[in-house]
Amino acid sequence: MSDKPSDAERAMRDWWRTSIIEMEPGVIRYRGYPIEDLIGRVSFAQTIWLLTRGELPSRRQGELLDAALMAAVDHGPQAPSIAIARMAATCGVGLNNAIASAVNVLGDVHGGAGEQAVELYQKIAVRVDAGAAVAAAVKAAAAPFFEGDEFVPGFGHRFHPVDPRSPRLLQLVDEAASDGVVTGRYAAIARAIEDEIAAVKGKRITLNIDGATAVIYAELGFPAPLARALFCLSRSVGITAHAWEQSQQGGRNKGPIPRQYIWTYDGPAKRAVPKG
Amino acid sequence: MSDKPSDAERAMRDWWRTSIIEMEPGVIRYRGYPIEDLIGRVSFAQTIWLLTRGELPSRRQGELLDAALMAAVDHGPQAPSIAIARMAATCGVGLNNAIASAVNVLGDVHGGAGEQAVELYQKIAVRVDAGAAVAAAVKAAAAPFFEGDEFVPGFGHRFHPVDPRSPRLLQLVDEAASDGVVTGRYAAIARAIEDEIAAVKGKRITLNIDGATAVIYAELGFPAPLARALFCLSRSVGITAHAWEQSQQGGRNKGPIPRQYIWTYDGPAKRAVPKG
Amino acid sequence: MSDKPSDAERAMRDWWRTSIIEMEPGVIRYRGYPIEDLIGRVSFAQTIWLLTRGELPSRRQGELLDAALMAAVDHGPQAPSIAIARMAATCGVGLNNAIASAVNVLGDVHGGAGEQAVELYQKIAVRVDAGAAVAAAVKAAAAPFFEGDEFVPGFGHRFHPVDPRSPRLLQLVDEAASDGVVTGRYAAIARAIEDEIAAVKGKRITLNIDGATAVIYAELGFPAPLARALFCLSRSVGITAHAWEQSQQGGRNKGPIPRQYIWTYDGPAKRAVPKG
Amino acid sequence: MSDKPSDAERAMRDWWRTSIIEMEPGVIRYRGYPIEDLIGRVSFAQTIWLLTRGELPSRRQGELLDAALMAAVDHGPQAPSIAIARMAATCGVGLNNAIASAVNVLGDVHGGAGEQAVELYQKIAVRVDAGAAVAAAVKAAAAPFFEGDEFVPGFGHRFHPVDPRSPRLLQLVDEAASDGVVTGRYAAIARAIEDEIAAVKGKRITLNIDGATAVIYAELGFPAPLARALFCLSRSVGITAHAWEQSQQGGRNKGPIPRQYIWTYDGPAKRAVPKG
Repeated sequence: MSDKPSDAERAMRDWWRTSIIEMEPGVIRYRGYPIEDLIGRVSFAQTIWLLTRGELPSRRQGELLDAALMAAVDHGPQAPSIAIARMAATCGVGLNNAIASAVNVLGDVHGGAGEQAVELYQKIAVRVDAGAAVAAAVKAAAAPFFEGDEFVPGFGHRFHPVDPRSPRLLQLVDEAASDGVVTGRYAAIARAIEDEIAAVKGKRITLNIDGATAVIYAELGFPAPLARALFCLSRSVGITAHAWEQSQQGGRNKGPIPRQYIWTYDGPAKRAVPKG
Repeated sequence: MSDKPSDAERAMRDWWRTSIIEMEPGVIRYRGYPIEDLIGRVSFAQTIWLLTRGELPSRRQGELLDAALMAAVDHGPQAPSIAIARMAATCGVGLNNAIASAVNVLGDVHGGAGEQAVELYQKIAVRVDAGAAVAAAVKAAAAPFFEGDEFVPGFGHRFHPVDPRSPRLLQLVDEAASDGVVTGRYAAIARAIEDEIAAVKGKRITLNIDGATAVIYAELGFPAPLARALFCLSRSVGITAHAWEQSQQGGRNKGPIPRQYIWTYDGPAKRAVPKG
Repeated sequence: MSDKPSDAERAMRDWWRTSIIEMEPGVIRYRGYPIEDLIGRVSFAQTIWLLTRGELPSRRQGELLDAALMAAVDHGPQAPSIAIARMAATCGVGLNNAIASAVNVLGDVHGGAGEQAVELYQKIAVRVDAGAAVAAAVKAAAAPFFEGDEFVPGFGHRFHPVDPRSPRLLQLVDEAASDGVVTGRYAAIARAIEDEIAAVKGKRITLNIDGATAVIYAELGFPAPLARALFCLSRSVGITAHAWEQSQQGGRNKGPIPRQYIWTYDGPAKRAVPKG
Repeated sequence: MSDKPSDAERAMRDWWRTSIIEMEPGVIRYRGYPIEDLIGRVSFAQTIWLLTRGELPSRRQGELLDAALMAAVDHGPQAPSIAIARMAATCGVGLNNAIASAVNVLGDVHGGAGEQAVELYQKIAVRVDAGAAVAAAVKAAAAPFFEGDEFVPGFGHRFHPVDPRSPRLLQLVDEAASDGVVTGRYAAIARAIEDEIAAVKGKRITLNIDGATAVIYAELGFPAPLARALFCLSRSVGITAHAWEQSQQGGRNKGPIPRQYIWTYDGPAKRAVPKG
């Protein structure tokens, strides 16, 4: 190469641009930190934070993130993502492929409630910052869900009357708040939403895992779309464990239900192909 | 840009190299053929051939390929690929994502039998070309499957005593052979394998859809790995139809089996987390 | 099983429900048609229609669908989907996996213009059915795009001044309309949109492949979301061909740009990991 | 339901079977441990271990696993997986989809070296257990790679003369070994392989990230296929961070190289479509 880079060289070098990682031969730095200085001193959860956010969290912040990540790893083979991972494992593909097919379905319905809950909490926080009382801000933000007869994202569970993960996660937030690690405002907002739902619906519909981890993600300052990504990282663990377990159990082309039951057909009866 | 391209320009232009498609502003050519000349004169199946093989097939060759593609589009929601597509459709992802999660599992077990059957047929053909009789070549090539007590790829079906697609597909091959479109040698090889299995196992285990489409792919000269890819293109149709039908039926996070039955747990009983 | 099915049996059988495919041992019927009657008499494109729509199209309708499918198969390695397929092929995964990673990205931006164009055409048709003149209906429906300074979906191309596929596809629609195969109303709507864009923007921004295939899909009565799915089926062909070609070229872990150029780093300079 | 479960009920309940997770309404237990007892006391890395292996690791074991996971999160946009994530982010799909397309390509070539290295180390350990000296066992196990002129998996890097992650990771293993957390035998084996390569090739080809993390996974007793899965979990972090960063940068349908350079076409020159 000449001393002065050509337009083409510059174009090529500039095509991909990142502030996450810098490399030279023998050198890797994440966000400016030499990798060999990070290894052994910074946890996996802190590294997730560093890469997605740009700065290192404190040890306590990292632990709170870690708790949210470890709490949501699995909810069993009835979840489509887990079922997909297990079925994939019987089809002759690698664990990487089984993970991919499964993580792929963590969309708005299966994986989006956390993201939607963070959005809701942040919307309420903005109203509070603008001078509203928490209860009033919650009422205003929750109303559209009641009008549309929709779930409030992050609340209620079709299987658990009370999600056993949520009270414990909120307890960790409370401890962190009392130590000044976080403000606790999003925990307060989530509890106020629970009260509002109870007032409107006449029964308590409590915080589920998506709503509880969303409290943590909001307390820690994560933008809402990253809540979905963090759930993907978390659930990938259960996906991996189930794909691996299934591969050890064996099975070939394992379908969703026992073989003898097939499915219900409700289409046209047998008919002849028209001529021509 | 200067008249003489720099090293960097050349490096960039050469990084991706293809003989499939050529483009200039206003110009698209597949394998040398202007796209506007192909449209309306060449079928979808012929285009699949052209892009993967490099040359245009005749009309009759294209029709035989078309028949193999249309015959394998669907085998119902008991197939993991179709179940995955339907479950994905209830998770809030796009049809493209549902297709991807499903096609992804068409690996060695679920999607590989056609590829393996083409390999088997071709191995036998090589022996025949070297002077062996068909029956002897079949015996030699099939023996390892019997020794390992494995399925012969392309033969037998866990649901259909006789796969209703196979006789009709072989009939099309016979017609094409009698018209000189193909040689018919791979149909003969497949039939000889059926005979060999019957002789060894004492019962007829007939050609399944993978074995029958493999006859067509081998007759048409496709390399074995493309047999898997062609199956992916074919099954993508059923995957799409089921994902779409499920999205019209509705459902949110639809798991594999009815909700009330969950799964069997066979792990450790409830226990306390150790201290420390 | 007992004569009277138990609740559990019924629940299981009813969990998956489809009108696409009916099966018994030795029997496969698509939408009521025995598979052996379809094979060799119905094309791949007609089968795509049958499975997604429920009824068989006529031969001419099938041919028009076929033309839309074959026209969009490939647009070269600059398209993210094709680049992903090629890179995947160098990573040690199967062709099914390479197809999946690539089809997966055919989302709203890369694969959604056809769907959006069908929606736009249908919205205009609804206004026309309600009594509006075509030009007025087009003006009303296109206005939001101009106000938002957005692309009108299906029009304009960043590489081709005129997309060479579109005039030929419209010609096929015109021929089909003059033969009574389709009404031609969506071709008229698309041309009226071109005129409206020219009037507003002062230059002709012509129909691209998404807009042209959308005319065909709308003429043939496909719901808009299926336009995206049909594009996925079509582009899967180019994806397959490029993954296969790359696998024949070799390469290991082939990155996007030539190795020597890496990327631009614009993050923090080297810094020390804080204590604690 | 009746008191005595029907055959159908039993069949359904038994279809999916797991020892990973047990659930009842209000109850979630991973491997027997109530989720609310795990939260806040067990790290994300320990949870990964618990779900994939069945038992809880000690704190120190968990920290060693954590170090391996955090060390491999990213190697920049030149890696196909990262490039795919970034391109996907410009195509209008969710972060879950971008992660899926990217993780999917972590196959034998891009993601398999760690798995292969664990296999190699374990094969050597088996020989040593059977009485061979380490150097002799290494020589025997490495020979096939030299004969085939193949890379020894886990050694050498096309970019880094010395991979900056490896010495630091080995240092952590040495510390853990001196504290009795692990035996250190796999670190010794890896170093003996380095020596053997140097003896055969006449130059030091040092342990790369795959080889170094494989030492940790082998020391911790992970089966080889899980090494690939752990790499997938680790690299998912970099994939997520890059997909997110790209989505913030914007871009639509961003291809692999700068737009003006396209690709090299080496297929047939322009030609006419044959008649018929």
